[in-house]
Amino acid sequence: MNDENAPYLKKFIRDVPDFPKKGIVFKDITPLLKDRGAFNMMAESIAVSYEDAGITHVAVIESRGFLLGSAIASQLGVGVIPIRKKGKLPWKVHQASYELEYGTDVVEVHQDAAGPGDRVLIVDDVIATGGTAKAACELIEKLGAKVAGVALLIELSFLKGREKLPGRDVQALIKY
Amino acid sequence: MNDENAPYLKKFIRDVPDFPKKGIVFKDITPLLKDRGAFNMMAESIAVSYEDAGITHVAVIESRGFLLGSAIASQLGVGVIPIRKKGKLPWKVHQASYELEYGTDVVEVHQDAAGPGDRVLIVDDVIATGGTAKAACELIEKLGAKVAGVALLIELSFLKGREKLPGRDVQALIKY
Repeated sequence: MNDENAPYLKKFIRDVPDFPKKGIVFKDITPLLKDRGAFNMMAESIAVSYEDAGITHVAVIESRGFLLGSAIASQLGVGVIPIRKKGKLPWKVHQASYELEYGTDVVEVHQDAAGPGDRVLIVDDVIATGGTAKAACELIEKLGAKVAGVALLIELSFLKGREKLPGRDVQALIKY
Repeated sequence: MNDENAPYLKKFIRDVPDFPKKGIVFKDITPLLKDRGAFNMMAESIAVSYEDAGITHVAVIESRGFLLGSAIASQLGVGVIPIRKKGKLPWKVHQASYELEYGTDVVEVHQDAAGPGDRVLIVDDVIATGGTAKAACELIEKLGAKVAGVALLIELSFLKGREKLPGRDVQALIKY
């Protein structure tokens, strides 16, 4: 990724203390999204790494992954595959589950979203513990498609999410 | 909008009966999203109408509006403002409510998302009864910004959502 732009883009990430709960410092990307220069620089800085990777689709993880991934897909000139929370997709789905602090959660993809021969780039805003990204990779592989990479705007390195994705091409533009 | 492309794009909309509940025929846009030609044609066909409208931001309505609107913003070279369901945005918000079949629902926008001098295009996937679009317009105006238009991929004309938006520039690419 073009991480020369990371120090500039980092200025548009706002720390919000105690969200979604006490003790968590949330990385708010809305100042970056609303700035036309920063938003387009973000999409281009990520897309440039995958221009020659034969990407056929960008899979976007609900909800903030939708905001970034659709712009990146538009830059790459490819289609978009939504990976959604349980019960949101209307047609036949595959499911994958991942662990939360307490209990598990489920993500879904349509069974006809991609297939053999497709090379899918997975996009999300943040990688924390890596559970969602791992489940997203499983979904793409259940479709018979190949995971060409996992692209994040932000990596919270101290949570070691990358360790849940051994052998994957995982790239993050901004690291904390 | 460039609705010469509408008949072609309509082929990528899938009818799913009885979703989200019995008796509703849901318009599933995922076949359109995943097709690179259709996805890019959709974004370009909508964006072309607003190229000379001095748009500063695209406001995108959670969640499917995120998928379309971010690509349209990318085409227009402008930033994105997420309009989200209650409790999802981390910072200080304005709220607007709208009526559901039973009860009301609330959408929110960050208080610093836009301001006077900004011209905002609101994007969502579908206009049905128009309640969400109307609430989104109220939010943008609470920020002191101007609503330059409301752009939809799909208009369910028989639900007359347009009547809730008098005096607004409302444009839909595909009509049923």
